[in-house]
Amino acid sequence: MIIQLQEDISDKQRESLLAEVINIGYKTTEVKTQLGDYIIGIGKKEFDIRKIGKKEGIKDIHIVSDEYKLVSKKWKAKPTSIDLGNGVFIKDGDMAIIAGPCSIESEDQIRKVIKHLKENDIKMMRGGVFKPRSSPYAFRGLGIDGLKLWYDLASEAGIKIVTEVMQVSQIEEMYPYTDIYQVGARNTQNFNLLDELGKVDKAVMIKRGISGTIEELLQSAEYVFSGGNEKLILCERGIRTYERASRNTLDLNAVPILKAKSHLPVIVDPSHGIGIRAYVPQMALAGVMAGADGIIYETHEIPEKAYSDGQQTLDFTQSALLADWIRKTFAMRKTFDLV
Amino acid sequence: MIIQLQEDISDKQRESLLAEVINIGYKTTEVKTQLGDYIIGIGKKEFDIRKIGKKEGIKDIHIVSDEYKLVSKKWKAKPTSIDLGNGVFIKDGDMAIIAGPCSIESEDQIRKVIKHLKENDIKMMRGGVFKPRSSPYAFRGLGIDGLKLWYDLASEAGIKIVTEVMQVSQIEEMYPYTDIYQVGARNTQNFNLLDELGKVDKAVMIKRGISGTIEELLQSAEYVFSGGNEKLILCERGIRTYERASRNTLDLNAVPILKAKSHLPVIVDPSHGIGIRAYVPQMALAGVMAGADGIIYETHEIPEKAYSDGQQTLDFTQSALLADWIRKTFAMRKTFDLV
Amino acid sequence: MIIQLQEDISDKQRESLLAEVINIGYKTTEVKTQLGDYIIGIGKKEFDIRKIGKKEGIKDIHIVSDEYKLVSKKWKAKPTSIDLGNGVFIKDGDMAIIAGPCSIESEDQIRKVIKHLKENDIKMMRGGVFKPRSSPYAFRGLGIDGLKLWYDLASEAGIKIVTEVMQVSQIEEMYPYTDIYQVGARNTQNFNLLDELGKVDKAVMIKRGISGTIEELLQSAEYVFSGGNEKLILCERGIRTYERASRNTLDLNAVPILKAKSHLPVIVDPSHGIGIRAYVPQMALAGVMAGADGIIYETHEIPEKAYSDGQQTLDFTQSALLADWIRKTFAMRKTFDLV
Amino acid sequence: MIIQLQEDISDKQRESLLAEVINIGYKTTEVKTQLGDYIIGIGKKEFDIRKIGKKEGIKDIHIVSDEYKLVSKKWKAKPTSIDLGNGVFIKDGDMAIIAGPCSIESEDQIRKVIKHLKENDIKMMRGGVFKPRSSPYAFRGLGIDGLKLWYDLASEAGIKIVTEVMQVSQIEEMYPYTDIYQVGARNTQNFNLLDELGKVDKAVMIKRGISGTIEELLQSAEYVFSGGNEKLILCERGIRTYERASRNTLDLNAVPILKAKSHLPVIVDPSHGIGIRAYVPQMALAGVMAGADGIIYETHEIPEKAYSDGQQTLDFTQSALLADWIRKTFAMRKTFDLV
Repeated sequence: MIIQLQEDISDKQRESLLAEVINIGYKTTEVKTQLGDYIIGIGKKEFDIRKIGKKEGIKDIHIVSDEYKLVSKKWKAKPTSIDLGNGVFIKDGDMAIIAGPCSIESEDQIRKVIKHLKENDIKMMRGGVFKPRSSPYAFRGLGIDGLKLWYDLASEAGIKIVTEVMQVSQIEEMYPYTDIYQVGARNTQNFNLLDELGKVDKAVMIKRGISGTIEELLQSAEYVFSGGNEKLILCERGIRTYERASRNTLDLNAVPILKAKSHLPVIVDPSHGIGIRAYVPQMALAGVMAGADGIIYETHEIPEKAYSDGQQTLDFTQSALLADWIRKTFAMRKTFDLV
Repeated sequence: MIIQLQEDISDKQRESLLAEVINIGYKTTEVKTQLGDYIIGIGKKEFDIRKIGKKEGIKDIHIVSDEYKLVSKKWKAKPTSIDLGNGVFIKDGDMAIIAGPCSIESEDQIRKVIKHLKENDIKMMRGGVFKPRSSPYAFRGLGIDGLKLWYDLASEAGIKIVTEVMQVSQIEEMYPYTDIYQVGARNTQNFNLLDELGKVDKAVMIKRGISGTIEELLQSAEYVFSGGNEKLILCERGIRTYERASRNTLDLNAVPILKAKSHLPVIVDPSHGIGIRAYVPQMALAGVMAGADGIIYETHEIPEKAYSDGQQTLDFTQSALLADWIRKTFAMRKTFDLV
Repeated sequence: MIIQLQEDISDKQRESLLAEVINIGYKTTEVKTQLGDYIIGIGKKEFDIRKIGKKEGIKDIHIVSDEYKLVSKKWKAKPTSIDLGNGVFIKDGDMAIIAGPCSIESEDQIRKVIKHLKENDIKMMRGGVFKPRSSPYAFRGLGIDGLKLWYDLASEAGIKIVTEVMQVSQIEEMYPYTDIYQVGARNTQNFNLLDELGKVDKAVMIKRGISGTIEELLQSAEYVFSGGNEKLILCERGIRTYERASRNTLDLNAVPILKAKSHLPVIVDPSHGIGIRAYVPQMALAGVMAGADGIIYETHEIPEKAYSDGQQTLDFTQSALLADWIRKTFAMRKTFDLV
Repeated sequence: MIIQLQEDISDKQRESLLAEVINIGYKTTEVKTQLGDYIIGIGKKEFDIRKIGKKEGIKDIHIVSDEYKLVSKKWKAKPTSIDLGNGVFIKDGDMAIIAGPCSIESEDQIRKVIKHLKENDIKMMRGGVFKPRSSPYAFRGLGIDGLKLWYDLASEAGIKIVTEVMQVSQIEEMYPYTDIYQVGARNTQNFNLLDELGKVDKAVMIKRGISGTIEELLQSAEYVFSGGNEKLILCERGIRTYERASRNTLDLNAVPILKAKSHLPVIVDPSHGIGIRAYVPQMALAGVMAGADGIIYETHEIPEKAYSDGQQTLDFTQSALLADWIRKTFAMRKTFDLV
């Protein structure tokens, strides 16, 4: 059960409420986020919800039988809107476009990408400075200095940035220089990282695990939310299957299912989802029609020279076209009465 | 290698040609389809293609290194167009809509579906009369009598039908009463069935196997083509993965990949692909944007009362809306310069 | 529900019984096998089993809630023993060894394998004469003539043979020349083939599908049993997963699970299960310890020259060692008190 | 390429050597472990190995084309032996048995398990104090205090312990109280954690990822080794597939493949591998026959009352039997001439 507390609840009321829930035989977790205070009760016994509901200090109470609670649409039908400042949002009813290179490489590269984004009215940029690599001998990114440089140039241009955080110790050092922390597909179930991101007041985009289920993605989001941070974005980026003709299997089924189960915005990553440059646009547009609230894709001035993921990266001409097509497709989708 | 023969090739020229190919150390297969005669040469040794190419009786010669040959785009860049008669086509550059129930149930049901299709200008109807069921105790379809009844009503209304053939012995009895034979996902590698369908002059739609690869789907099509039948359609209908939130994982990546590898038209089945009625429209439209040449979906007057697959079947109101959205989405896609 | 009928049940008693079951609201299927007559009732309504149980003509009555019924251990706790004649059995409490080449190639090859089997007291031989191949241009086996030759030589030597049947039309022509029909992994859900094998009085070994579930394997066996043939053997041969370091993923978990769910014997195929010659012995012995009632593996005088599957085929020296190790491991397993 | 350095190499010799490798166009990584100093060269250009090989300060030089290098058998054919002190080893040619509860729960529980282990001559104990849980509301373990208590009791009894480390910050606090750090299946690609474990002089057991490949497991081990720690153990614990009848699909194919590719010892975890108590013994013995150097399984005085994983945990009677069977099976395996 989720109990939303009134802002002016007294300590005594709160204690009495906790006692009442424990009394049913439920385990309680107190959650305090940017937007409110909650008590989560976990248990299986049936109880009379009215008995708790009429107690003082309660704004609302909900039964949520899913394993995830706070990220469920069952208690919060209204979609969550992520406000990044300066009029930049990621939210249901809108189409966020996030583009940029796989890896941040140099000042020159950053400047060129930013110029490209500005020319195409794209307000969010992706890029990696800490790169998870399966081989210890591969390029691991420019690190925190690269991030500082990038953030300065981007914020000057009014561009919001999203970049991967790989471990707890990076959260704090990255904080002044990032708009959205990205949790990568290999860290979707790095529970300590999720716990710590719950303590931060910046948006977090969680990628679905390499072979993560939809349920696990929602539970990972629940970790961050229950840690205190409601600013969450979910990202479908392809899953591992037996098929070898594409890098991953982009599971667009996940988009309407996530939108139905959760109030959080859902982003699609066609670049990792298919891994082949020529087909990224089709899969991006398919993602829009599947119901995505945004698309994140890789672009680079000269993809063939990118430090990583060049084979799935669009050049600026392709990127400009895609941004236009995404917007047109989204405009059409809005005229359809889709659930 | 694929050698396309001239129509007026003499027996002597043909024999000389075969001898030449065998002489290189290649195994030959002679293929005669509705549209032409071919010699397929299988082998690994390098050879001088000009030596064969200048022989008499040859229209064209191509090196195709893929495991599949005749269905490859490497020798036939022009997309294959399936002409079903009466101005009904399945082809690249067009959008085929195929709708109908999972199972053919009764004359009344057939009439109602046909009326719905006519009202929405849908020219192809799907339906099962031989049903593959994992349990031997489940409903197995109305059989050949149901097919006759259905075919008569459909052809009277100018509607083309597609229905599953489950075994070799059914091919002949179904022949007068079907427009497109469907090979189901459990029979994609039923090689005897594919062989026999090669001998028939009617279109064949091959569904991707339950956990079939893209490569295997193309090889299954190669079976039918090399048996003598070029009228082939490929269908992506979802694959089996670890994810349990949807019936299957609709692999839309397969659409641009199949279109790039083969000259055959590609159809998407969102009904089986996600298995949840409310999300069938989104996935259908995603399929259109991914590059499909057609959409096949399930519709029934009262889905809750359907003999099978009701949970993924649209009612007629939803179906009418979806057909309209599919057409609008396809019209927009054509304005984009997608590969 | 499964109702076992008395051998001397009268037509009147049978009709009365059917009427009673239909009266509950259950669909009935009458099954007549080599060993008995059964009525299967399918439905969901609860009913008083005693009311049916006390009717005349009944030997026993069982509630079986699984999707599969007749192959379930819930009504038949006693393991099924497959008697192949001449003292050759496949059964729980015994260890069947089946060895032979992937493809039957020639009389000379057959004679050499038979000699090897005799020297090592191996009483069952595997081999393919109809080969399912993903490419239409690959070697498809010697066909029925190869089978006749092989069967004659094998039966003369007192060796029982198991070979794949690919389509309904082959069942009858193969009948005089086979001891065990094998249903291959691509045909596990070829329901027509399963239906027809139910009408035959010879043993059938069903391989698990390429990506078939344990449940589906049992349902495929149910098809044959409900068609009238109780002589069934299940075979685990590896499943398709994302892992590429082995040909398939041998799922030995399936062995104890199948043994617990069904009364049918379970065989393990380590050759296809891992696909790498050097590791076939380990996986065979692992299969024995997992609880298999038999091992089927590939052997050839000169594996490198085998027409197919050479990379996973043992030579005769390796095969002789393996047969010995299998027997020793099985003898030890019997001293353990495993479920 | 891997260059093993002589212990008495001079700084000048080292610099000259690095310069030579860089000169070929290779990227170099210097590795210093407990057992030696290495230079790893990564690149694709061909070069004359003799030219480097004859330089001073070199003990040996090897070309290793795999993505992983230091963990490969290609340069170190001799199996790695993990010496835990007091005569306890994990190594090829030996059979390590590691048993204990899923979670460490209380002093009483620890004492009972230790008593059981001592009675059965089991020298290693498993247990979790930091528990990765997919839901933030589940029991997360006793933490560092539980570890201290456990370690004291275990070391007093001469028992070595293995326990999961979930994040970098725990490495140091756990150090005095653990014998083997376990990297869990959700952290197999937590590269920062792997990096940091490279700096520690204690054994590390890396579990295969939830859907990790064999290749990825070896690369994760490469991270730790290249970070400076050679004391590595690999663990197969089941992978995620579509099959739902078992918790995971225990991939015993991985055992001989890992043993062939790497010099590191390989452990099998049948408890997580199948997830059903009744079948854990069979799968453990199958693991022994597949070639494992050890078995890790869950045991608890009263499995039904365990805080976690009770359904796959053996009671002490079952555990005692299993330990005996493992030893007998291993003794028999040693008499076979398996690769």
